[in-house]
Amino acid sequence: MSRLRVWFLVLIVAAGCGAEPGAGVREQATAPRGTPQADPLPSWNDGATKAAIVDFVGRVTRDGGPEFVAPGERIATFDNDGTLWGEQPVYVQLAFALDRVKALAPKHPEWTQKQPFKGVLEGDVKAVAASGEHGLLEIMAATHAGNTTEEFSRIVADWIDTARHPKSNRKYTEMVYQPMLELLAYLRANGFKTFIVSGGGVEFMRGFADKTYGIPSEQVIGSSGVTQYAMWDASPVLIKMPKVLFVDDGPGKPEGINHFIGRQPIFAFGNSDGDKEMLEWTAACGRLCFMGLVHHTDAVREYAYDRDSSVGKLDKALDEANAKGWTVVDMKNDWKTIFPAAKAAQ
Amino acid sequence: MSRLRVWFLVLIVAAGCGAEPGAGVREQATAPRGTPQADPLPSWNDGATKAAIVDFVGRVTRDGGPEFVAPGERIATFDNDGTLWGEQPVYVQLAFALDRVKALAPKHPEWTQKQPFKGVLEGDVKAVAASGEHGLLEIMAATHAGNTTEEFSRIVADWIDTARHPKSNRKYTEMVYQPMLELLAYLRANGFKTFIVSGGGVEFMRGFADKTYGIPSEQVIGSSGVTQYAMWDASPVLIKMPKVLFVDDGPGKPEGINHFIGRQPIFAFGNSDGDKEMLEWTAACGRLCFMGLVHHTDAVREYAYDRDSSVGKLDKALDEANAKGWTVVDMKNDWKTIFPAAKAAQ
Repeated sequence: MSRLRVWFLVLIVAAGCGAEPGAGVREQATAPRGTPQADPLPSWNDGATKAAIVDFVGRVTRDGGPEFVAPGERIATFDNDGTLWGEQPVYVQLAFALDRVKALAPKHPEWTQKQPFKGVLEGDVKAVAASGEHGLLEIMAATHAGNTTEEFSRIVADWIDTARHPKSNRKYTEMVYQPMLELLAYLRANGFKTFIVSGGGVEFMRGFADKTYGIPSEQVIGSSGVTQYAMWDASPVLIKMPKVLFVDDGPGKPEGINHFIGRQPIFAFGNSDGDKEMLEWTAACGRLCFMGLVHHTDAVREYAYDRDSSVGKLDKALDEANAKGWTVVDMKNDWKTIFPAAKAAQ
Repeated sequence: MSRLRVWFLVLIVAAGCGAEPGAGVREQATAPRGTPQADPLPSWNDGATKAAIVDFVGRVTRDGGPEFVAPGERIATFDNDGTLWGEQPVYVQLAFALDRVKALAPKHPEWTQKQPFKGVLEGDVKAVAASGEHGLLEIMAATHAGNTTEEFSRIVADWIDTARHPKSNRKYTEMVYQPMLELLAYLRANGFKTFIVSGGGVEFMRGFADKTYGIPSEQVIGSSGVTQYAMWDASPVLIKMPKVLFVDDGPGKPEGINHFIGRQPIFAFGNSDGDKEMLEWTAACGRLCFMGLVHHTDAVREYAYDRDSSVGKLDKALDEANAKGWTVVDMKNDWKTIFPAAKAAQ
């Protein structure tokens, strides 16, 4: 089965899971006061996981040490969905696509009679799922193509600024993981260049990655569609075509890392089987390297899922991590805080 | 005609031009002493071209000024062949491919009887050209695919370290343009992020871009082949497949810029019609932006060619530059020095 097919099927299954009972998303109180100022990872509980991160960073940055890595070669890659922000009950980008169908519906009166759009408009997830891969391809084409790249960026920016998570009612950009924000900042402060390497659409993620994670658009790698250069009214535009160029998931992650970055990371973090090959590729970096997985074990503050989940399935990669001694974050016990504290004026 | 076809045809035509009479490549004496220390562009003669560059950089970096651009948004893109280094009498990558055929010939005894390889081995450029697009595709597949990315990098590094330009007998990495090296450094010193955006193969260029231009691999954008992740003896590798993923030339340049960088440059430099769309895309950046072309006008120190050249043809882009007031470098008059001074121990 092609990777594209797998990707779409995952999305379809995810669409059918919107109604799954998920634990309520509640934010823990912010980190207790009195944490030493010097701690760059205040939302991480002390323990083996935090120690492994700090130890690794110390060793590769120790000038003259046997494991020193020059700053320009300190490449760190992070999956996004489930690693930097939440992915339950459905991928954020799928929520965006479904909202886009609703927003575009007035211009498409035929959709009220035509699946999978009819199902989306009526909230009938079973009908959407029944439309299969072809149906989801239609949804993606209708919502992710036909615009110029500039128009699409504006649409994403408007949506991400207003859409809310169905359980927490917080903005999706506030459903990022506070400990991972600290980890990104900690790595950058130590001369690492941080990249997103995600199965999600690259232009969707670029709409918020810089503001949310401090990762500029040129360091965001994701699944990509073909664009076509054209002149409209004597001005150049890039039109998003309904054709996939590259799927950045599973083996597509090391392929994407090579395509965009051209060298192996020495640090990589994921949370699902889609990250297995990226972690394997990092493990083969030929020097000291760090492979991490976020294990969603916190049914109270976030969600608890792994081997049987249709979204973010973590099975083979967990076995490999355990066998090879990669670092596995136990979200419940390793993270003091899950999400950033709510801002006063929200 | 597909862009890929155009690209290959250009290469084929270029192959037929190896015997063209080219002016001898002679290096001018290094810049005269007494140049003020403060001049960041000592190899550029004073004049309108140099003034336009310095004026632009001053305006976009003047904090609080009306045309100020934040450092993170100072994206500068450069074509490579003919813009940062020479491209005559043939593209360097084609010289590499032809040398690879010779190096691989002992493993392929059948090549002595089979075109286009027979033509390459016998120096019969007409026979190579006669093999057409299919022939060049065979050469590219035989020399640019089948290896792992790691093996290919080593092959390129070894070649670039030993191969010599047919006229000057200097290494290709010494046939870079000294004024452009200074321009890259000047832009970086002013907070710009410099990228290569070239029709050349991305993995070929990454073999020397960092050392030669100070541009790290993740800022090198070029034409790309498909790679495939695989496990060999329990170690992951990426195998270079004989399949084109993306051709970064002409309209492919703005498409590539969007794909890799995700935002418009404010500064771009090219030298041929293949750069026209990149410059148009930059001109549409929505604020003060700089579009430059290197015009090869120096038959004595380098080469003189433009509208009728089979390599680096500059025709439509020159008309557009003149019509729109883009900056055109007159190599003969604007550049005090063309190539870096020869090193003492060469």
